[in-house]
Amino acid sequence: MDLTASPKVLARAAADLLRLLPGRTLDPVLSGVVLEADVDGVVLAGTDRERGVRLHRTARVHRAGRLLVPARPLAEVLRHLDAPEVRLVLEGSRLALRTPGARFALPLLDLDAHPGVRAAPPALGSLDTALLPRAAVVAGAASRDDALPVFTGVHLTRRGDRLVLVGTDRFRMAVADLPWRPVAEGPDLLVPAGVLTEVSRQAEGAEVVLHGDADRAGFGWPGAEVTTAVLDAPFPDESRHLGAPFDGTVELPAADLAAALRRVAPFAGPQATVLLDVGDGEVRLRATGTGDADESVKASTGGDRISTGYQPRYLADALGAFGSDRIRIGLRSGHRRATVLTTADPTAAHLHYVVMPKRL
Amino acid sequence: MDLTASPKVLARAAADLLRLLPGRTLDPVLSGVVLEADVDGVVLAGTDRERGVRLHRTARVHRAGRLLVPARPLAEVLRHLDAPEVRLVLEGSRLALRTPGARFALPLLDLDAHPGVRAAPPALGSLDTALLPRAAVVAGAASRDDALPVFTGVHLTRRGDRLVLVGTDRFRMAVADLPWRPVAEGPDLLVPAGVLTEVSRQAEGAEVVLHGDADRAGFGWPGAEVTTAVLDAPFPDESRHLGAPFDGTVELPAADLAAALRRVAPFAGPQATVLLDVGDGEVRLRATGTGDADESVKASTGGDRISTGYQPRYLADALGAFGSDRIRIGLRSGHRRATVLTTADPTAAHLHYVVMPKRL
Repeated sequence: MDLTASPKVLARAAADLLRLLPGRTLDPVLSGVVLEADVDGVVLAGTDRERGVRLHRTARVHRAGRLLVPARPLAEVLRHLDAPEVRLVLEGSRLALRTPGARFALPLLDLDAHPGVRAAPPALGSLDTALLPRAAVVAGAASRDDALPVFTGVHLTRRGDRLVLVGTDRFRMAVADLPWRPVAEGPDLLVPAGVLTEVSRQAEGAEVVLHGDADRAGFGWPGAEVTTAVLDAPFPDESRHLGAPFDGTVELPAADLAAALRRVAPFAGPQATVLLDVGDGEVRLRATGTGDADESVKASTGGDRISTGYQPRYLADALGAFGSDRIRIGLRSGHRRATVLTTADPTAAHLHYVVMPKRL
Repeated sequence: MDLTASPKVLARAAADLLRLLPGRTLDPVLSGVVLEADVDGVVLAGTDRERGVRLHRTARVHRAGRLLVPARPLAEVLRHLDAPEVRLVLEGSRLALRTPGARFALPLLDLDAHPGVRAAPPALGSLDTALLPRAAVVAGAASRDDALPVFTGVHLTRRGDRLVLVGTDRFRMAVADLPWRPVAEGPDLLVPAGVLTEVSRQAEGAEVVLHGDADRAGFGWPGAEVTTAVLDAPFPDESRHLGAPFDGTVELPAADLAAALRRVAPFAGPQATVLLDVGDGEVRLRATGTGDADESVKASTGGDRISTGYQPRYLADALGAFGSDRIRIGLRSGHRRATVLTTADPTAAHLHYVVMPKRL
């Protein structure tokens, strides 16, 4: 192998690959990145057996080749190079990275022992780039606790011409209902939320093609293909929270209520409850603990003048998901009856955030 | 008490006060901030018995007063206020913070139980604002390990019309030799490095007056007075490292060598040594571990063509202290003979950074 490329481009690719394969593997071969150079450029590929990543990047290839080097050291040396070009060349049992005045050499790993990176399963359809932030919000609502694997996943299903993504950690639930261009049946996949979060970040600005079969899901965008094993568990149904009628409604900019919550929440005591009271043309947030706080925010209100209480963190996450959008909050009186936050603009891609109130 | 002020200004002051008093105190009274309002504005004052802080800020005072409230909750609520003004008013046994539509009330602490914040000892002289970054560098070379308190201090002494600051953790030593406008004898003070670091940050842009007596040091700048107990221990003498002649010298921009070191250092093996070879018109950095690295940097070199080895972190800290300045590195051959980095420009405020080479 002998190629010349931009250190910045390769560094970004190596870092992206590591972010998609964060698992600490005991197998040294899997800590390596496969470099494949041919006339089309260079591919960086890696796997932890659960996940697979292939990133294609531009390079001037002087001699084609395929080799395996430790991924972290490669990323580290590329990250600090400030020369405009770097030459990667196989020298004996090492891969040398050369810039003017400097040479960095990495030992090769045993390519024959590497399991390879499988191609993605068949394409199912594609999602517009503008919708990726919504997918990231849904992934953010999933649990990070591996003890209950089902809640670490995001459920992707098709409903008519929409793709519905659902993430929940049992205390809150985010549902995105996005325009979808199908090319096959499906999907019905439970994808690890961490993969979806990272894909949303890396694919920013590109159309993403979703792939899937019974065991695996894949995401493709220009220059990148990411696959992951899917989670196998029955996923809770979101419709019972979204469907039922509301007793009271509030419409206001999410950021206004989020700002008030940031001020009021620190006053919530050890039981950490923030109260939301629906008033006339306003909602009030209240908390009592070390001192007390009370703030009113202008809003369009409807239905009953009800009062509900929330874990501040869950309400903050839900509001944060809508950024500066105007939202509609549907509230229900009574214990354990979900509150639903929705984008108020019916033309925007639909996002619903379900938060369970606390018993008062 | 009843006053109106800028939440931003008060939030900044409360945060600065907490940064200067980071110690977790078991005495709840010391977790409070004393607010003193009079015709001149408002003072935020606090102490952990070792240190004392008084910060004066502008306010429109409607009714003078003095009270004690928990510092962290006060800082927290001020931090999130986005109204242009906040009114602080005593309401019964609470301090209320009022903005349009919102009220936040903090419980009062027992002001009579508070020890008060002592005034600073006498002024000794003053230091120009431009020199504070040098003081911060010296503080950064001190140890963070409280097991050897003497090395957590920065030694301040007068030498002629210069103030000499020395910080060391035994493995490296930074010496700043700064212009000084004395108004009294002294100083000869061992000041906790953490205080000096924080003072350098907060006093940015102001002339700093140094105060001191046998037991305490103080720093004053417009609107602020910070005092601290001094450390009481014999401090190592720096002059034996600085005085002796060098066997080889290198002159180059610190940033060039720092950038090369960032690339080469990750290759240093488990014993983590980076080699520096003085060549003709260049220095070479080398490391061997997982692979190997070799980079040459252009430099003016003099004396012997010697080779020394360093702990990469210490060399990186030393180079980082000089930013983009051109530096002179004085090297000595043989074991445990210090390397000294100095600003090459003789008109610049003098900074010397001593690094001990490793046995090769």
